[in-house]
Amino acid sequence: MRMLNNFCKEYRVYYEDTDSGGVVYYANYLKFLERARTDFIRSLNISQSEIIAKHNLAFVVKSCKVNFIKPAKLDDLLLVSVNIKNVGIASIAIYQEIFCDSKIISKAEIEIVFVDLKSFKPKKIEKSLRDILMSKVAI
Amino acid sequence: MRMLNNFCKEYRVYYEDTDSGGVVYYANYLKFLERARTDFIRSLNISQSEIIAKHNLAFVVKSCKVNFIKPAKLDDLLLVSVNIKNVGIASIAIYQEIFCDSKIISKAEIEIVFVDLKSFKPKKIEKSLRDILMSKVAI
Amino acid sequence: MRMLNNFCKEYRVYYEDTDSGGVVYYANYLKFLERARTDFIRSLNISQSEIIAKHNLAFVVKSCKVNFIKPAKLDDLLLVSVNIKNVGIASIAIYQEIFCDSKIISKAEIEIVFVDLKSFKPKKIEKSLRDILMSKVAI
Amino acid sequence: MRMLNNFCKEYRVYYEDTDSGGVVYYANYLKFLERARTDFIRSLNISQSEIIAKHNLAFVVKSCKVNFIKPAKLDDLLLVSVNIKNVGIASIAIYQEIFCDSKIISKAEIEIVFVDLKSFKPKKIEKSLRDILMSKVAI
Repeated sequence: MRMLNNFCKEYRVYYEDTDSGGVVYYANYLKFLERARTDFIRSLNISQSEIIAKHNLAFVVKSCKVNFIKPAKLDDLLLVSVNIKNVGIASIAIYQEIFCDSKIISKAEIEIVFVDLKSFKPKKIEKSLRDILMSKVAI
Repeated sequence: MRMLNNFCKEYRVYYEDTDSGGVVYYANYLKFLERARTDFIRSLNISQSEIIAKHNLAFVVKSCKVNFIKPAKLDDLLLVSVNIKNVGIASIAIYQEIFCDSKIISKAEIEIVFVDLKSFKPKKIEKSLRDILMSKVAI
Repeated sequence: MRMLNNFCKEYRVYYEDTDSGGVVYYANYLKFLERARTDFIRSLNISQSEIIAKHNLAFVVKSCKVNFIKPAKLDDLLLVSVNIKNVGIASIAIYQEIFCDSKIISKAEIEIVFVDLKSFKPKKIEKSLRDILMSKVAI
Repeated sequence: MRMLNNFCKEYRVYYEDTDSGGVVYYANYLKFLERARTDFIRSLNISQSEIIAKHNLAFVVKSCKVNFIKPAKLDDLLLVSVNIKNVGIASIAIYQEIFCDSKIISKAEIEIVFVDLKSFKPKKIEKSLRDILMSKVAI
């Protein structure tokens, strides 16, 4: 599944990311996935910390499905992609891949919800923000 | 889905687990899930560090599907369950739940593979180990 | 340096704590130290999350000096101590040790400040809280 | 203390680095410090993973003294410096600073030892490696 309109960024594997099995600890791949989503959002000139400060609203992960295909190791340079598949009223469906040495090592389906940080109830993504995200839906 | 034969253990939420959204960081729920799987394995008198030291073999996560239903907060006491659904030649299918104040807050389907830590190729789970795991399949 | 009046608690080392050097990642010892401080505070019936919710005040670390004497490994059970050395107007000096198999593996001097979480300016520790802490100064 | 011969690199603060106090979790500053040391070593064309693979030797932290001056927040871009102060037979003394918006927010004294990863006994830093490190002593 190769997509247009996607965002990619590189992240280095440091000691902190690995475990005594000699490879990246499984939960830490989700950190790389989140960094890429955050950098993607930033690349759209949307400031998450500003949305929190102003409205106390934030994007939170509702579900994730991750396949760990090959392990990454210390010093590896990972390329992480972000592809918006769908933008709903209060949610976003994202598909992500992690590559190392041009080989896919992980893939993930992430469901994001826009919520009020006090109640954790879903909130409508405001039109201007939604328009930006819609324009980035990968095809 | 309530199961028999399952394992449960409590884990506390500390500052390290939370993020600036005020709740547990999404990837950190996977740490709680892994701690419970490790403590479950230990409760069966299987030593993972011994299996690594002797055979350089280990259980690694091949895929995970996690639903984040409600957030956990600082100081919360989480109850994490482990239910073996199926034991294959080189793999185990596990279902886990996380509870807080008797309410389910996360559920996860985890696929584990038994691999050689050098090649990361799947290895047959040896009979004695497999028998123990099979006897714990949740019903 | 053996102290009276101190608090001790055990914490298990999981995969998440280790790195590809085969031992606990150096920054993660600070997590074990902080868990013990938090559990010590909880044992005094002081709720940190309540103090934050009510007053937006919290204890934060101003400085730490940690000696890593021996490494801890996967599955190790660590015993972590907390000894209050001094309680100031807005600060606490703490000495901590980490033991594994009855041997000291780390020791730490921690300086804590009580701050307003908005301004991060030091705030006077209120008398009732200060009295409880003073009564626990290790001798 | 401004030094010549030092190494600097920028690192972004993500959700994973923060805690529910709204700022970077104290132990996570040590991750940023370690990333900078690793990237510094890499900039000298020294491969830590190769030294481990070939000789099972590695640089490990023996002690650290960290002052947390101001907190960093989500989305902050941190500039982390590495200054070698002294190179011994089996050890390195390093001074590091973390800056945010051109203001110093943390400073750290780190003592590194070169050890055998099996015994964790100190090992002489081999001459070629020592010469490279000596040439980078900050003045």
